[in-house]
Amino acid sequence: MPLQAEFDHLCVVLVRTRNPLNIGAAARAMSNFGFFHLRVMNPYEASFREARSAVGASSILSNAAQFSSVAEAVADCTLVVGTTSVGRRELQHPVRTLEAGAKLIRRRLRASRVALLFGSEKVGLSNSDLSHCHWLLRIPTRPEHRSMNLGQAVAVCLYELARGSQPAPAPERIQPASAGDVERITAVLLEALRASGYLKPGAAELTEEKLRRLVRRLHLSSADAEVWLGMLRQILWKLQSSRD
Amino acid sequence: MPLQAEFDHLCVVLVRTRNPLNIGAAARAMSNFGFFHLRVMNPYEASFREARSAVGASSILSNAAQFSSVAEAVADCTLVVGTTSVGRRELQHPVRTLEAGAKLIRRRLRASRVALLFGSEKVGLSNSDLSHCHWLLRIPTRPEHRSMNLGQAVAVCLYELARGSQPAPAPERIQPASAGDVERITAVLLEALRASGYLKPGAAELTEEKLRRLVRRLHLSSADAEVWLGMLRQILWKLQSSRD
Repeated sequence: MPLQAEFDHLCVVLVRTRNPLNIGAAARAMSNFGFFHLRVMNPYEASFREARSAVGASSILSNAAQFSSVAEAVADCTLVVGTTSVGRRELQHPVRTLEAGAKLIRRRLRASRVALLFGSEKVGLSNSDLSHCHWLLRIPTRPEHRSMNLGQAVAVCLYELARGSQPAPAPERIQPASAGDVERITAVLLEALRASGYLKPGAAELTEEKLRRLVRRLHLSSADAEVWLGMLRQILWKLQSSRD
Repeated sequence: MPLQAEFDHLCVVLVRTRNPLNIGAAARAMSNFGFFHLRVMNPYEASFREARSAVGASSILSNAAQFSSVAEAVADCTLVVGTTSVGRRELQHPVRTLEAGAKLIRRRLRASRVALLFGSEKVGLSNSDLSHCHWLLRIPTRPEHRSMNLGQAVAVCLYELARGSQPAPAPERIQPASAGDVERITAVLLEALRASGYLKPGAAELTEEKLRRLVRRLHLSSADAEVWLGMLRQILWKLQSSRD
């Protein structure tokens, strides 16, 4: 499947991640969206061991490649993208919004590997890490609260990358009710309203027309129309039988 | 700012959340993307207390409203959307992908409140919870690993809602009925069906849930809801008074 080949070209690189829960969360989001290549650069050793040995840890974690420098972690990639919560950095990288940046990444993934870097929870990517990046990706968070949780940032980025590659979903296939069914419902409802005293026996024609419009605004499906007709008939039967 | 007014109409509803970290993560993502109304329905008490008292807990958490039923939690909303990782459920809701569904939600947010429901970590939303929903939202995860971490699912949904909200879509011109009104119609109809013998006194819960779904599929306007409620109340009154 061509999609999978493209996804196979993405390397998620976690740089100096401290919290094992975040490493696990990143791996889970990768599995959710179909990206399988995790690389970790100098994680806190204990964290990485803990994440790997967690119950239900995925093959993504056990297959994660470990590196001791960003240069090595991205060596086989033709595009290196850093994620940031900040608009401007000293190194004056171009900053792209996630949506625009994801389009460029997807295009590159068709032919070669792309590295997507996520920094540590506390300080993000350092200027040294950023010096390896071609440009930066920014998730459009509020200026007053830019900084995202690491696992959530990974999930949002991968969602956006996967989103643009989805085939169009199938349209809904609901069969609408026929006009005949809708008119039968209208007639039974009208009878029930008369029997209940809601409509007086000599009710104006206008009321009947209003009722007809009211029922049509329901836009019933064929299946639902059958249920409504059954319910109203039973109610009408009860109203009429108790009258005697 | 008009955008903020729209975001103000979204209620994130966490249903029976167990893990305080997930409640905190949901609140953080809300703050990142500019949504401030959190509602919790029967959270594990200790979890909620812990989440609220965590260091750096946001005003979103301290202002979160607590409810003991889904019906109450969504009563003032005109659109109730459940999130699911599963494609098909017993109640046969329409399932929309996140991207398509977010467009509909944004349009509704211009004029009235929308509830977005997230189920518990282990079992998601129950059929009873789902019976309050107009339709379901599915994040396009891999079929082999559909189920997302709760905090990540919230982040991805809110990212998608915030992402598309730059240009203003045309507002809807019909005021939809609130969930509270729709639930009142459901309750009166249920009584009428029992009084008429359509439903047996000990009718299974599933039937009530199916009925709730049936009524929500009508997508009633606020004005029409009032008319239906009046008609059904009169019918119910007649059914009950003639029984004596």
